[in-house]
Amino acid sequence: MSTPGRGTGATPASDLGERGLIERIRRMLPSPPPDLLVGPGDDAAVVRPERGAFDILTTDALVEGVHFDFSFSTPTDVGHKALAINLSDVASMGGTPRFALLSLMIPASCSLEAFDGLLEGFLTLAGRSRVAVAGGNISRSPGPLVVDVTVTGSARPRKILTRAGGRPGDRLYVSGTIGASSAGLWWLQRHAGAGEVAEPDGAVLACVQRHRRPEPRVRLGAVIGRTRAANACMDLSDGLADAIRQVAEASGTGARIEADRLPIDQGAREIFSGAGKDPVESALAGGDDYELLFAVPARFKGRFRAAGRLAQGLSLTHIGELTADRSLVVIQNGTEAALPHGFAHF
Amino acid sequence: MSTPGRGTGATPASDLGERGLIERIRRMLPSPPPDLLVGPGDDAAVVRPERGAFDILTTDALVEGVHFDFSFSTPTDVGHKALAINLSDVASMGGTPRFALLSLMIPASCSLEAFDGLLEGFLTLAGRSRVAVAGGNISRSPGPLVVDVTVTGSARPRKILTRAGGRPGDRLYVSGTIGASSAGLWWLQRHAGAGEVAEPDGAVLACVQRHRRPEPRVRLGAVIGRTRAANACMDLSDGLADAIRQVAEASGTGARIEADRLPIDQGAREIFSGAGKDPVESALAGGDDYELLFAVPARFKGRFRAAGRLAQGLSLTHIGELTADRSLVVIQNGTEAALPHGFAHF
Repeated sequence: MSTPGRGTGATPASDLGERGLIERIRRMLPSPPPDLLVGPGDDAAVVRPERGAFDILTTDALVEGVHFDFSFSTPTDVGHKALAINLSDVASMGGTPRFALLSLMIPASCSLEAFDGLLEGFLTLAGRSRVAVAGGNISRSPGPLVVDVTVTGSARPRKILTRAGGRPGDRLYVSGTIGASSAGLWWLQRHAGAGEVAEPDGAVLACVQRHRRPEPRVRLGAVIGRTRAANACMDLSDGLADAIRQVAEASGTGARIEADRLPIDQGAREIFSGAGKDPVESALAGGDDYELLFAVPARFKGRFRAAGRLAQGLSLTHIGELTADRSLVVIQNGTEAALPHGFAHF
Repeated sequence: MSTPGRGTGATPASDLGERGLIERIRRMLPSPPPDLLVGPGDDAAVVRPERGAFDILTTDALVEGVHFDFSFSTPTDVGHKALAINLSDVASMGGTPRFALLSLMIPASCSLEAFDGLLEGFLTLAGRSRVAVAGGNISRSPGPLVVDVTVTGSARPRKILTRAGGRPGDRLYVSGTIGASSAGLWWLQRHAGAGEVAEPDGAVLACVQRHRRPEPRVRLGAVIGRTRAANACMDLSDGLADAIRQVAEASGTGARIEADRLPIDQGAREIFSGAGKDPVESALAGGDDYELLFAVPARFKGRFRAAGRLAQGLSLTHIGELTADRSLVVIQNGTEAALPHGFAHF
């Protein structure tokens, strides 16, 4: 099996030492934005807060063997995803990301080539998302590769989307499609075997790509926050069923979801059906999609759709409602069932 | 050997799952300060920036087997130190710490008792330093325990202390004493053997305690920044020799240090001398003291000493000068020698 960064003869990244690696990263960075007053290289970074806004802070890590596997993902994929999952958290608060701190724990098996690939994935998404690397930390790891990222962002007062803002009667909308990432991972695990992973094509390839490089809904979250078009929001890191459960619990409501409305990815349907799994249940439970779930007051539905059109051309699908009754149900073929449980990253 | 958290029959912390552990932490937290608008439990935290100040951002990790060893430190020590090293970075910028994010990667061998101990060490220091836990992340680890911390702080414009602000002729001052932490670690490693670590006493105990629970110079850094009593500052995470080298390089100067002036800890002198090591060289090279090094213009020395008196009753020792000549020298017994290299945590 091809395991990037473990080829014989490759230079271990750790040979460069902490300062050598930090210097290597600094040479890859674009010129800093004016609000980054002290960047990487000092004891800490100094940034100018956005005037009149609150700071958003989030941290999330990818751990080799827990969240990713170099049999299925390249170092560039991992670098991308480590930033993406944090950008998704800022977006789900209605915020705009600004700065990132990159904390790496590097095993002896990590080659300099893998290190460079990881940084490339991270910095390409950072550039596209207008996020500047403000600092970080590099350590050896006697175990797995760990990519731990902190992202800061900003949002105006009263334009922050928490999980807890939902009200009974709010419509639930989900962006994009669901199920693709977990279907892609399932396909990779099934086709890994002892040799090279077969490269998928068509709709299956799209699922594999969603698993490898999820696209955080940075613009959508910021636009919906800024226009105050939703009462609550959460990202789908642990799956749609989990997000519905969390928003309903935090908001003190229940939820009713209509299975027929769910925007299940076409490739995911194919993969799940081919595996004899129920596509609805699998797509609801599957994690790692990084779409956004919104609770929208009925009177704001026009504003919500108008705001959504400004963002990345993503579909926004009405999938159900928050309810005064605290139960969590899925309606399918005229019958009610309990909402399945989600996916645990831990 | 006693390895905390690995006793037979102990409940593994990971049995509680990510949400169970987050809920456990939330119950340990004091009530949030008014500037923490959204705390742990949502996708991200929301905080109010300090009016008219810049944000300081820093991240630093402790990795089991690299930065600590449960043969020498308790989980409580590790929790304390993981926050302390980040507070030290904020202090060295002249800032005041405000919020922390705690990212934990927990191996199956970590007991719930060890988890609680770690949190206790972290939260006790946080409370004492007026730092609020704004959020974090918990993941399983297939390898070492990793405690990765991000701390944010604030500092007024033009009151930030970077490494680069030093000028030729500035006096170099160091807070407290040096060498204690590395001497304490050396003593522990020497006395570990196959059984229990013998408990040291007196001056040696103080060194061991400095290794286990370094005290970040939070108030000193903030006061010297606020009063603009220094041109440059850095903390001694990688030792005094390294800090002198970094400040001189960033400031475009050299440095001359007088060995006789160095405030070498008395216990460290005993340990180093007993081991047949040169106390000056060992204390200069030894890491983990978390004291602060300042470059102070000669005309500010009164202001600097007055400001220093406000902070923790710490001694501030004049150890040498920054020089226009770029060389880095130590004067001892009338002869010049090159500054030794520091300690690499990596």
